[in-house]
Amino acid sequence: MMAGVPEPFRHQVRVRYSECDLQGIVFNANYLTYVDDALTELWRAAVPGGYTGMVQSGVDMVVGEANIRYLAPARVDDLLDLVVSVARLGTTGMTLDVAIGCEGRSLTEVTMRYVFVAAGDGGKVPIPDAVRAVLSSKVTSGPGG
Amino acid sequence: MMAGVPEPFRHQVRVRYSECDLQGIVFNANYLTYVDDALTELWRAAVPGGYTGMVQSGVDMVVGEANIRYLAPARVDDLLDLVVSVARLGTTGMTLDVAIGCEGRSLTEVTMRYVFVAAGDGGKVPIPDAVRAVLSSKVTSGPGG
Amino acid sequence: MMAGVPEPFRHQVRVRYSECDLQGIVFNANYLTYVDDALTELWRAAVPGGYTGMVQSGVDMVVGEANIRYLAPARVDDLLDLVVSVARLGTTGMTLDVAIGCEGRSLTEVTMRYVFVAAGDGGKVPIPDAVRAVLSSKVTSGPGG
Amino acid sequence: MMAGVPEPFRHQVRVRYSECDLQGIVFNANYLTYVDDALTELWRAAVPGGYTGMVQSGVDMVVGEANIRYLAPARVDDLLDLVVSVARLGTTGMTLDVAIGCEGRSLTEVTMRYVFVAAGDGGKVPIPDAVRAVLSSKVTSGPGG
Repeated sequence: MMAGVPEPFRHQVRVRYSECDLQGIVFNANYLTYVDDALTELWRAAVPGGYTGMVQSGVDMVVGEANIRYLAPARVDDLLDLVVSVARLGTTGMTLDVAIGCEGRSLTEVTMRYVFVAAGDGGKVPIPDAVRAVLSSKVTSGPGG
Repeated sequence: MMAGVPEPFRHQVRVRYSECDLQGIVFNANYLTYVDDALTELWRAAVPGGYTGMVQSGVDMVVGEANIRYLAPARVDDLLDLVVSVARLGTTGMTLDVAIGCEGRSLTEVTMRYVFVAAGDGGKVPIPDAVRAVLSSKVTSGPGG
Repeated sequence: MMAGVPEPFRHQVRVRYSECDLQGIVFNANYLTYVDDALTELWRAAVPGGYTGMVQSGVDMVVGEANIRYLAPARVDDLLDLVVSVARLGTTGMTLDVAIGCEGRSLTEVTMRYVFVAAGDGGKVPIPDAVRAVLSSKVTSGPGG
Repeated sequence: MMAGVPEPFRHQVRVRYSECDLQGIVFNANYLTYVDDALTELWRAAVPGGYTGMVQSGVDMVVGEANIRYLAPARVDDLLDLVVSVARLGTTGMTLDVAIGCEGRSLTEVTMRYVFVAAGDGGKVPIPDAVRAVLSSKVTSGPGG
């Protein structure tokens, strides 16, 4: 992959029956679970040791803020496409954009701000180098984003 | 209650064991479930027939946008205080502020934008009068919010 | 309470919107969450320090077997009554019967077998005395159950 | 496939972070969600129109009884193997055995009894022919099970 060409991470999630509610659509909270799933898979695919390995090395992540725009509902059996890109990459935090769609239609836009912390509820820590390298390749906006 | 004196709705939720994750804290998506729970209880307390009654009368609500600021984590056994106020009351939509705290500490601030729709996935409809009366008493900002 | 008169523990749970599925009823897995909730509340009500205190003292519980008979569905807004009694109280394990009903109708019958273990995934340990005292008052069957 | 040679259905599920609890293992209720997921995938793979198609044709399924034996815990990141076979195939009901394992180790054994009903909460109905054909190929025990 050439430097400077951002490459979003892609992950698919099949909507489960139990994730839909009485309205016949995915319950609003479950999109955050899908995002968490995509994050875990990004780590598994690109960070040696994966998310669990990072935690065992002493670094964990907490969510600082989540923003979800619901454009159209997902339904049971939908195979969702999650496209993850990095909107901002700071020293101890990052902001992810996660676009959730299905068969080319945009369903939900999620923005997540994460903070890297010492595992076991400690204070902020710098993003580990191996993680930063992965995230850098997925930055979609300019420096400082 | 005097006209013009906003009165937020208060609801309590006990954190369940199954709602906490490997970090020892409530998983980020579950706050939206608590908010949904508080909303249902507001309807039960104040709207004749409750939420189910409103749906049976042909009006339902969908979430347009959710914003969650995570200030401090909730933990198992915490008895959460949810304080619901109306930040904006429009013709077919409203915006709620939900402050989630525990023992006086602020844990999470949630802003939810809802749209009233015809039950069964229809288009936007005006907020029913009985619902508007309830919401009006909980508006915290000026007209137009 | 007289010795020898078993007194089941009672707990109420309100069915949440998000716990119901496309069939319009509570999703089958969620009854185990209700049972877990009732168990936590029994500990909170009767065991000094509650469940968390027991874990901090070095003793935890794991589920060995669960059996659920679904007699009739629970629905959104239902206020469920859970009645917990002890069917068998052994040295390192116990079996609970949890009857779940609503407005006098029996909805679900759950039997759970638990094993007491050293906290942190250790081996079997005897039931702590304070816990045994509580459970003994709720045994519904004869010795050895 | 030769007649008489039962062929269990196999499905894989990756354990999500949010599905694990404070004990560091999958929360006990979530195995029923995995089973439901496997069932949906079996229908998708083998029944024309899938589960949703069956419901639209007027036939739905409800759970009559669930039994779960927890042998060893599943953990975050585990890729679970679910092996579904039919223990009993009746006129309006069936019993499934679902063995859940990971990397060759057996973790959980689940037995589910389902009843076929008229969609929309109706009474028992015969198993549709297309479904019966699929299930017949997965019966592991003798006639009458």
